[in-house]
Amino acid sequence: MIKKILLTTLLFCAFLVGFAENGYRLWLRYDKIANNALLQQYRNSIQSFYCPETSPILAVARKELQTGLQGLLDKKTGASTTPGAASIVISVGQKNGGTKGIDYASLGKEGFVIRNITTNGRKQILIAANSDAGALYGVFHFLRLLQTNNDIQKVNITSIPKIQHRVLNHWDNLNRHVERGYAGISLWNWHTLPGYIDQRYIDYARANASLGINGTVLTNVNANALVLTDTYLQKVKALADVFRSYGIKVFLTARFSAPIEIGGLKTADPLNEEVQAWWKEKAAEIYKVIPDFGGFLVKANSEGQPGPQNYGRTHADGANMLADAVAPFGGIVMWRAFVYTNENPEDRVKQAYTEFKPLDGKFRKNVLVQVKNGPLDFQPREPFSPLFGAMPQTPLMMEFQITQEYLGQGTNLVYEAPMFKEVLQSDTYRQGEGSTVAKVIDGRLHDYPVTGIAGVSNIGNDINWTGHLFGQANWYAYGRLAWDHQLSATQIADEWIRQTFSSKKAVVDTIQSMMQNSYEAMVNYMTPLGLHHIMGTGHHYGPAPWIDNAGRPDWNPVYYHRADEKGIGFDRTTSGSNAVSQYAPELAKRFNNIQTCPEEYLLWFHHVPWNYTMKSGRTLWDELCLRYQKGVDEVRRMQKQWDSLRGSIDEERFRHVQMLLAVQEEEARWWRDACLQYFQTFSKQLLPEGVEKPAHSLEYYQKLKFPYAPGNG
Amino acid sequence: MIKKILLTTLLFCAFLVGFAENGYRLWLRYDKIANNALLQQYRNSIQSFYCPETSPILAVARKELQTGLQGLLDKKTGASTTPGAASIVISVGQKNGGTKGIDYASLGKEGFVIRNITTNGRKQILIAANSDAGALYGVFHFLRLLQTNNDIQKVNITSIPKIQHRVLNHWDNLNRHVERGYAGISLWNWHTLPGYIDQRYIDYARANASLGINGTVLTNVNANALVLTDTYLQKVKALADVFRSYGIKVFLTARFSAPIEIGGLKTADPLNEEVQAWWKEKAAEIYKVIPDFGGFLVKANSEGQPGPQNYGRTHADGANMLADAVAPFGGIVMWRAFVYTNENPEDRVKQAYTEFKPLDGKFRKNVLVQVKNGPLDFQPREPFSPLFGAMPQTPLMMEFQITQEYLGQGTNLVYEAPMFKEVLQSDTYRQGEGSTVAKVIDGRLHDYPVTGIAGVSNIGNDINWTGHLFGQANWYAYGRLAWDHQLSATQIADEWIRQTFSSKKAVVDTIQSMMQNSYEAMVNYMTPLGLHHIMGTGHHYGPAPWIDNAGRPDWNPVYYHRADEKGIGFDRTTSGSNAVSQYAPELAKRFNNIQTCPEEYLLWFHHVPWNYTMKSGRTLWDELCLRYQKGVDEVRRMQKQWDSLRGSIDEERFRHVQMLLAVQEEEARWWRDACLQYFQTFSKQLLPEGVEKPAHSLEYYQKLKFPYAPGNG
Repeated sequence: MIKKILLTTLLFCAFLVGFAENGYRLWLRYDKIANNALLQQYRNSIQSFYCPETSPILAVARKELQTGLQGLLDKKTGASTTPGAASIVISVGQKNGGTKGIDYASLGKEGFVIRNITTNGRKQILIAANSDAGALYGVFHFLRLLQTNNDIQKVNITSIPKIQHRVLNHWDNLNRHVERGYAGISLWNWHTLPGYIDQRYIDYARANASLGINGTVLTNVNANALVLTDTYLQKVKALADVFRSYGIKVFLTARFSAPIEIGGLKTADPLNEEVQAWWKEKAAEIYKVIPDFGGFLVKANSEGQPGPQNYGRTHADGANMLADAVAPFGGIVMWRAFVYTNENPEDRVKQAYTEFKPLDGKFRKNVLVQVKNGPLDFQPREPFSPLFGAMPQTPLMMEFQITQEYLGQGTNLVYEAPMFKEVLQSDTYRQGEGSTVAKVIDGRLHDYPVTGIAGVSNIGNDINWTGHLFGQANWYAYGRLAWDHQLSATQIADEWIRQTFSSKKAVVDTIQSMMQNSYEAMVNYMTPLGLHHIMGTGHHYGPAPWIDNAGRPDWNPVYYHRADEKGIGFDRTTSGSNAVSQYAPELAKRFNNIQTCPEEYLLWFHHVPWNYTMKSGRTLWDELCLRYQKGVDEVRRMQKQWDSLRGSIDEERFRHVQMLLAVQEEEARWWRDACLQYFQTFSKQLLPEGVEKPAHSLEYYQKLKFPYAPGNG
Repeated sequence: MIKKILLTTLLFCAFLVGFAENGYRLWLRYDKIANNALLQQYRNSIQSFYCPETSPILAVARKELQTGLQGLLDKKTGASTTPGAASIVISVGQKNGGTKGIDYASLGKEGFVIRNITTNGRKQILIAANSDAGALYGVFHFLRLLQTNNDIQKVNITSIPKIQHRVLNHWDNLNRHVERGYAGISLWNWHTLPGYIDQRYIDYARANASLGINGTVLTNVNANALVLTDTYLQKVKALADVFRSYGIKVFLTARFSAPIEIGGLKTADPLNEEVQAWWKEKAAEIYKVIPDFGGFLVKANSEGQPGPQNYGRTHADGANMLADAVAPFGGIVMWRAFVYTNENPEDRVKQAYTEFKPLDGKFRKNVLVQVKNGPLDFQPREPFSPLFGAMPQTPLMMEFQITQEYLGQGTNLVYEAPMFKEVLQSDTYRQGEGSTVAKVIDGRLHDYPVTGIAGVSNIGNDINWTGHLFGQANWYAYGRLAWDHQLSATQIADEWIRQTFSSKKAVVDTIQSMMQNSYEAMVNYMTPLGLHHIMGTGHHYGPAPWIDNAGRPDWNPVYYHRADEKGIGFDRTTSGSNAVSQYAPELAKRFNNIQTCPEEYLLWFHHVPWNYTMKSGRTLWDELCLRYQKGVDEVRRMQKQWDSLRGSIDEERFRHVQMLLAVQEEEARWWRDACLQYFQTFSKQLLPEGVEKPAHSLEYYQKLKFPYAPGNG
């Protein structure tokens, strides 16, 4: 009874602060600086600020400064009407020459400078840029310096985004269901738009602007043509009007068969003149309503979506038709390379390369081909897609998945920056050593005229935006890396932790350690050593390596792990599907040789005997089992670490994460026990020492059903 | 440009307070008392409080007092360890005789007393009850006294709920879609239960407890048997464990065919012994998991739901089988009277009475028959259901619809208390004059041994709970009336406004006036003079009186308005469908005579010639047109009234309501212009002076489509 009273009281305490600590404020909390010495330094050096208000974006920047300083310094900071007397000066462009010593040309459209200057003997902090958006980014960065407790006596920062188009992809349907969404439903309330502007539209734009995200694709890649009709365009306009003041452009997904579905045409053939004319008119109509419309994102001839191949045309034919329609208005087309034929392929991971490599150079200048980080589909770990580096004449943009479709969905704490970095730093060797994926997508390797990066959003209408509070860190990390992929995962985590929780050393160090280990932990308890695609069918929730009856062979887990009495893994070597040949010779050689193939990709490229000796000296079977166990142990370590923070973190957010970590530990055991017992039916070997006995039988796990798992379809 | 800057800044200002003023706090804000004299009075008379903490419910009461006083008095108020020294004393039961002068017997299980007492010369405020729940209700009521700025020098309140079961019905599906929900998706995140306890479950329970709501039906009446399986019962238990500490019992909807769907039986025949045994075992299983489980709510043989009639049995046979299963555990069955046969009936509104009246007295003691307020289906205005008063031997409970399925859904400000009161005060005449519906459902008229009232919830996962901020007032009003149906709509609105916005006279008076007029305004612009069921098919959004091709005749608006060149209205007189005969003779006579039939029900009971002379002296046609116009004018008046409050209300909530009122005005014009142009094709008469010219043609309105309108199906 007492226990229950305690629980109740505890839950209730959480409730008391609940209004404040529900996670809604994201990393833009602007709570009073806790370090008194620093607070004094800031208060002394910041008496007032000057920010011209000649545009909606600058009005936002000005407000942000006001709010931020008010909160962080806990005092009203006046806005000066002239730059002369102000402590902080926002300066846009080079009217009367701009500020000496600033290389405005190098800043480009969105870059900014923050530095200490002295004007008539007065110390000032200058935030300078060529554009209003650049100034806004500078303001957010300056406030971040304060929130993360940096010294502002000697600031000399020049920050320029390395990639032009930094966009979020929302897989949001018009009925507000979010495909692979685990944080409620879509933020976009299409029914009440355009008349009702939800406060969240504004808060969403502000959060993105604070990271430098400058584009958003509102609709699902599995597209609905209705969004291109006037009724919906008026709704899209209402959102675009809000986002514009935050430097964000709106994009839509274009359903390839729209000319038939809403245009009344008999075909959607990209070489048909009527079809081409229809898209040209449609583009003109859209730009009349939304003059700064960004353009289209297209998923074509993939998973049942219509496309140019329905008419015997190529992806280039399809993309170019749309590109020609938006080109006059400065729009772009992002064409996805995530395709696979409906016929059963010899190896699905080879298809994107096979279909797109030959099209290199055949796309219009305003087309980007959007390539998922790996050749399969956002698995916990994949080698980078061989397309990166293989299309020098075609701008390739990166598609990361922020939402954790295969990474624990809404209940697992998995910090994705280490995975993003692993991909970005991968060396394609296409122009010799050091030809990293990062250099491909930022355009340096092939001098791409246009560059882009996309993250599939994990945002929904849950109060805390991302369902799991730590999902916010992945949104944050994506945005920061999109701006500057050279930032380290550690540095980004440090920023996020300080802004989200506190700068107390114990808090920063503990959460940092949890976040840095979380990705590898998840890989271990789900798909260690290069395993992939062994999750439940449809909803992708939980393990189901035994599935062998899906609609087509390459939808089945058994297609990917190929476990048999001899061993396990997909032979993609020269003697197998030869997928290795899609990589540069140096890599093909390394991946092809079981001795040199990195163990984290071992079962991706090789079918390996159960008793094969691993670097650890253990057999593959023992190593596999111990990896699964290690994953579970790592989660338990995270639980202990988090528990050590009780009292250092408000009760509501503490309990939120604590409960979810308990769920994660349960799911990690589920993965371990289900997978190992299933693979055991092939290896015929016992679990090695140190691996816990399964809680249930294999049959038990095989019987589990989740008809209402979220994010499906 | 300047305009745009202003807009941006404005939206942005809203954002600044957004974290605080998003409506999440409902009516439990506990902001510091604004009136200084009163604040002093409160501070002086409240130094400390005593609340025993011998149960989870009392722990909640204690916390609530602490939070409430902390906020309202803006100072920490100590908790005494003994009653003697405290300013406020919570006293449960009659240990050592209880307090003199309190009639504990009359208080019953949930009633409470709040009064000033003097102990050893010390002035105290006593909150006494027989149960922990009663004390919790008393605490909430006391805090309400402070929040609504009452003098607490002379308090002598005895409050006892007039109805035993005061429940919310959630039409929430297991996939979180809410049927007829306009505030996002279901609060119940079945996927993460039982491991994750969302803070909202706690906040939801607290809000309901503050009103005295003591039961909640978690699942949709269009039921899914899966919720009765062990996996889901464990999830239900987790919710029940939270709600228990707030005095709230959990109920589930029982799908009648569950024995077949999850029980593996061949039949669900209520007279089949296997079926009876299955339900008995299922009930035992549920009560083992949830010892205080409330019982079942059932929709059977209605709109395609399975039921006893599939086996040639009566509703009584079905209800009694379930009643016998839960009876040993003290459970009840709420059996809905909302039924209609699949054959086309002569008049659908007669069916509930026709089917249930003959079953009076045939139900078990623990069965309540749940009757919608009107004989049709939650229309803007219906006469009360003739079943009320007609089943003296069967406890009837009221079913109100809080969610605004037919009352403007998520975008219209419609205060429902006046409608609830209109129904409750209706006189059935069944035991002579004064036999009101209220007296039926509170059990006084027929000495029902068990009483209940249900409200179909308007709650979803939107941050402000109800989508439209004023939807909170309907949740609040339902709860208050469920506790005490004698409260006036004005008094309830006064309480809600003061707690939600402020006690400033201008604010209270203005919003009071808006709320009181809003119901009649909506009836006028949607379905004046007794019109009904002329809304869009399926989603029920907007007007569509022309629909004549729905699946069955009585799903068509034309079935209900029967407009022709002669006139309009459904003849339910003795010369028509004779539905009037289902009422007591006094009423039948009044309704049957076009001269004495109240004009608000005129077209409900009579087919009336277009040139019939109304009480106003106008023809029916002119009166109809002017009513529609009046509805629009009333909305515009609400807009003016609300605009006058700018500055007296925080910007975020001000703009929220302002935008929605603009949408409401547009929808009111839509109803007027669509309905009048359509009826004009029959009346062949011009719009009278004072009625605005339609904005679009009839064809325009007939072409409108809303494939993704919320809450459908």
